[in-house]
Amino acid sequence: MSLLVQNQGIQPIVWDAGVLRLLDQRELPLREVWVACHSAADVAAAIHGMAVRGAPAIGIAAAYGLALDAAAQRDYDDAERVLAQSRPTAVNLRWALQRMRGLGTTDAAALLQEAQRIHHEDLAQNLRMGELGAALIEPGSQVLTHCNTGALATGGHGTALGVIRSAWQQHKLAQVYNTETRPWLQGARLTAWELLRDGIPTKLIADGAAAHLMRSRKIDWVIVGADRIAANGDTANKIGTYALAIAARHHGARFMVVAPSGTFDPGCADGQAIPIEERSARELTEVQGKVIAPPGMQTWNPVFDVTPAGLIDAIVCERGVLQGDYAAGIQRLMG
Amino acid sequence: MSLLVQNQGIQPIVWDAGVLRLLDQRELPLREVWVACHSAADVAAAIHGMAVRGAPAIGIAAAYGLALDAAAQRDYDDAERVLAQSRPTAVNLRWALQRMRGLGTTDAAALLQEAQRIHHEDLAQNLRMGELGAALIEPGSQVLTHCNTGALATGGHGTALGVIRSAWQQHKLAQVYNTETRPWLQGARLTAWELLRDGIPTKLIADGAAAHLMRSRKIDWVIVGADRIAANGDTANKIGTYALAIAARHHGARFMVVAPSGTFDPGCADGQAIPIEERSARELTEVQGKVIAPPGMQTWNPVFDVTPAGLIDAIVCERGVLQGDYAAGIQRLMG
Repeated sequence: MSLLVQNQGIQPIVWDAGVLRLLDQRELPLREVWVACHSAADVAAAIHGMAVRGAPAIGIAAAYGLALDAAAQRDYDDAERVLAQSRPTAVNLRWALQRMRGLGTTDAAALLQEAQRIHHEDLAQNLRMGELGAALIEPGSQVLTHCNTGALATGGHGTALGVIRSAWQQHKLAQVYNTETRPWLQGARLTAWELLRDGIPTKLIADGAAAHLMRSRKIDWVIVGADRIAANGDTANKIGTYALAIAARHHGARFMVVAPSGTFDPGCADGQAIPIEERSARELTEVQGKVIAPPGMQTWNPVFDVTPAGLIDAIVCERGVLQGDYAAGIQRLMG
Repeated sequence: MSLLVQNQGIQPIVWDAGVLRLLDQRELPLREVWVACHSAADVAAAIHGMAVRGAPAIGIAAAYGLALDAAAQRDYDDAERVLAQSRPTAVNLRWALQRMRGLGTTDAAALLQEAQRIHHEDLAQNLRMGELGAALIEPGSQVLTHCNTGALATGGHGTALGVIRSAWQQHKLAQVYNTETRPWLQGARLTAWELLRDGIPTKLIADGAAAHLMRSRKIDWVIVGADRIAANGDTANKIGTYALAIAARHHGARFMVVAPSGTFDPGCADGQAIPIEERSARELTEVQGKVIAPPGMQTWNPVFDVTPAGLIDAIVCERGVLQGDYAAGIQRLMG
């Protein structure tokens, strides 16, 4: 695929002469270890074990997993089943498996081509969003991002981080700041690694320091991804996003959401209808295996929060930029 | 001192028949280890090594340190010097050493009595602030606190955490939430430990989850301490406080600052005049010795931020409660 070859950035998912190589995200940022997958079961294990994370990246890896088993003439249904069970709640995983099945073939070459097409399309979407989002940014801007929405989470380039990459390539950015993003530290571990590797100047901040940052140093745009966008533009994203949106509005910083159109859920009227997953206490009481809270500590650990459309200045997807009346804009784009 | 004996709460600083015993805060929340200090040098090492932290607690420990050396007939000036150098920027430390020197004696009994008086006064102030602050809280309230402002940081009971303790004793609290308070995790490690130990129901949250908490569950009061309060009421406190104040205002939650009158700095016109210390990258790139960011990562790590007076609904000190026109109130209290 020409675009995959052209893309000079970080490529955490590589098809290499019949082997799928995945950059192990558990080992980042300290070590770059590659996991070699020779079967759907290998890919499923990598997904389940979080060697690969990020919704689009999981879908792409799963598609390649089907191609691997087809090449080895293993059973298609078995391959599909083991992949589907690797992370049962991942929407992109189910979507990718359904698309592959929609081909109606178990031909290895056809399946590999479709996997590469899914990979290619995701990257192309991200490059397009990068252009659209960067066009909103003035030269000399300082931006803040949250969580990891980069090449590691997608087919390449990234969503919110893709906009930052594109804006940097256009010499528009004076400084990037990225939150550490507790509890999982995707910002400290992954976004920091991506930006450092690309030579984009970034400073890591504690999540709690973002409002003080906006007050004491000018932030022009806060740029984040999305896990789900309701019909009215309310946006679910990594916990901490909503606090950034409130602080941005308070300081006159603009707030950009970047996500492919597949993130829109027109069946969800507004943010109230988006279920918010709560996760185990352990994510808060331990950091990388180190216990940091007393035994028996209770926690409240929601993974996502909802940013109301009214706090969002622009939603960028591959089909265009929405501003103002999101309900009408989303209907138009999805219609 | 009767009040110290009456206080049934956590007592991290204990004078025990000629030995000063300090609860080692570095070992919390997993282990309760006591450091026995037999000299000013022992106390200085405990302060420097952060076995004892929190501005009032450091001042109290240093005062006892002078008494220890006087009892052993060691040189007063040497004792004072080693203590003063243990944490050069700590305001309470200098204040306590000056007060002890003001006695104009090297008599061990007199110095011990003065150290106990400093300890006693701090506890008495905290109990008084607890009463005053709790009076502002309605029964059935849910409150959120940040950092550690409890018995561990003071002579007992605490400032903001003292208000929470008093309100709990008055059966006014339905639920407490406490932030983990990155980067030092004083909330996860120390506040959580204190509340759990006192049987006060608390849930630990990520700093970034506070705004989502205020939106999805009602928070009546955010209650925090202060490191310095300017003449107009602008308040410097642990990084993350300002973000909580913005989110509180956005959601109609009230915001209470609790600090003894020694925290007021009438020489500081407003928050702009308060210097904000920035600390090393390592606090953000490591957690408890575990590296969580790529090598070479740049950071922006301010320790404090400033909450403008306009976002504060009440300032509670031992002399009274300020609301509304803080400049006039602070002048009146300090005049």
